[in-house]
Amino acid sequence: MTISKTKITARAHTNIALIKYWGKANQKLKLPTTSSLSLTLNDFYTDTSVLFKPELTEDKISFNNEILSPIKAKRIVHFLDLVRKMANSNLYAEVYTINHVPTSAGLASSASGFAALAAASSKAIGLDLNKKELSRLARRGSGSATRSIYGGFVEWKKGFSDKSSYAVPFEEQLTWPINMVAVMVNKSEKQMSSSKGMQISVATSPYYSAWKKLCKKDLKKIKVAIKNRDFDTMGQIAEENAMRMHSLTLSASPDYSYFDADSLKVMNLVHTLRKNGLACYFTMDAGPNVKILVEQKNTDKLVTELQKQFASDKIVVASSGPGIKYL
Amino acid sequence: MTISKTKITARAHTNIALIKYWGKANQKLKLPTTSSLSLTLNDFYTDTSVLFKPELTEDKISFNNEILSPIKAKRIVHFLDLVRKMANSNLYAEVYTINHVPTSAGLASSASGFAALAAASSKAIGLDLNKKELSRLARRGSGSATRSIYGGFVEWKKGFSDKSSYAVPFEEQLTWPINMVAVMVNKSEKQMSSSKGMQISVATSPYYSAWKKLCKKDLKKIKVAIKNRDFDTMGQIAEENAMRMHSLTLSASPDYSYFDADSLKVMNLVHTLRKNGLACYFTMDAGPNVKILVEQKNTDKLVTELQKQFASDKIVVASSGPGIKYL
Repeated sequence: MTISKTKITARAHTNIALIKYWGKANQKLKLPTTSSLSLTLNDFYTDTSVLFKPELTEDKISFNNEILSPIKAKRIVHFLDLVRKMANSNLYAEVYTINHVPTSAGLASSASGFAALAAASSKAIGLDLNKKELSRLARRGSGSATRSIYGGFVEWKKGFSDKSSYAVPFEEQLTWPINMVAVMVNKSEKQMSSSKGMQISVATSPYYSAWKKLCKKDLKKIKVAIKNRDFDTMGQIAEENAMRMHSLTLSASPDYSYFDADSLKVMNLVHTLRKNGLACYFTMDAGPNVKILVEQKNTDKLVTELQKQFASDKIVVASSGPGIKYL
Repeated sequence: MTISKTKITARAHTNIALIKYWGKANQKLKLPTTSSLSLTLNDFYTDTSVLFKPELTEDKISFNNEILSPIKAKRIVHFLDLVRKMANSNLYAEVYTINHVPTSAGLASSASGFAALAAASSKAIGLDLNKKELSRLARRGSGSATRSIYGGFVEWKKGFSDKSSYAVPFEEQLTWPINMVAVMVNKSEKQMSSSKGMQISVATSPYYSAWKKLCKKDLKKIKVAIKNRDFDTMGQIAEENAMRMHSLTLSASPDYSYFDADSLKVMNLVHTLRKNGLACYFTMDAGPNVKILVEQKNTDKLVTELQKQFASDKIVVASSGPGIKYL
């Protein structure tokens, strides 16, 4: 195990869950209450470079060309502490991150962020982790990062311990021409972090135990639909699973919501388009942006309809993306 | 039993449920899956006059000064058929209704409507029903009408049969100075009728069985809070119960919602005001309007805040209203 003398750079793509992760069974280890399934996206990613240096007296974190204050750097420093512990090292690091995902707006910037950080920092410190180990490590940074190690459709097996909770590729080299169209209705920081939100849902929603059972069933069904290339069944399961996740926010105490006026507008539009024969299905995470699943052949039609209501620069067409790689 | 020779006019007020009714155990008899609790409002009501006349060859229904077409009159004619059956009569009626509630906008116009129709038509045909019987009869027209027979706080005991499902006054002569401020964000007809909506929720929401258990608990708790004049506990239970009802729409298959952009705006405002120390709590039904519970002493403050975001004519302050009466 040798510490790298040059910086190591990794790129990880974000992912959007079709079967959602919404709640932890173990806060510290970030073990989820349910297994989940996502699609890695090509168009939103994070590049992170790491170099451990003997002369440093603390970690220096640069994020989108800004040096983070100790408070803002805390979560990343904690993560580096884990990596140092694994490597039996006490060296500090320089971390340089460029995020090509809007931060904290429900587009899972922490997924690509912690996946890239896991890959770059572990290699920089001299650990030689395989993908399963990388997935477990990324999980400690952010639950959804667990899945960003792989491309295409990815399943995060919830497991029951640090060792048994990691992602596996479900279909990594995706030959199915489908897209995810993101409508960026609001790039502002969200009110309720997903971490805090899910904690409140687990603790107070009377629907939480039904949610856990539901996800188990949905996961089975969506895997069959994906295998069968049954777009409508996949889309319907994904949309309903997402809305049942958002029901956990409304039904929590205190009640809260990630919807805003434009989210409703997109959702209504998707319902209308579908009634009119255009196969498309939405999903939403812990932020107001809406992501729409659509087959490639129908993507132009969908975008044209969206452009009637939203500025073109708010509409991003993403295709399936690859797993982690070193640059 | 004598048929009245002059028209009989009854006035019934609408009611807003604090513990919601969302689902039928029996479609035909309109038996609910859960008991519910409401507040009758002074400011929204229906006046209905009925006269049964031997010379008529069909029912003539006038609604807000418009003669209804057979299709639009169908639900009312069905109700009159029930009344005729009870009275062993085959006479047709003239019905004249003026509604002081916006129709089908989540302000329970059918509650006051069928309560007034039950009272006026039963008396006009010569039946002498007591309030319990009136409540049962009104239920056959519209579930929420069951409660509009009484004033103040009213409990609808779900029962298990036509005979056992009716409302009882919980606190009829209300001495507690509280108001319900309705924000009429949209007076247009709603997309999904409450009747169809609840049917889909019962049949498809994975959260429905948890909802039924929850309502039983919430009902117990809110009755204690009302007895104790504990406004915050009452408001919190009501707001959470409403959002847990709306979770049943989001979690249904197909997913649907009664929220619109302005509903979210009002809900966010209420949350913000509460954070800033103003005790107020919202509730919502099968339409986009939002109703806010507030103590009388805080009502002016609330209205002032609402007026910063909504036109004054969209804000209606309602106090507790009386039960059914003959004019």
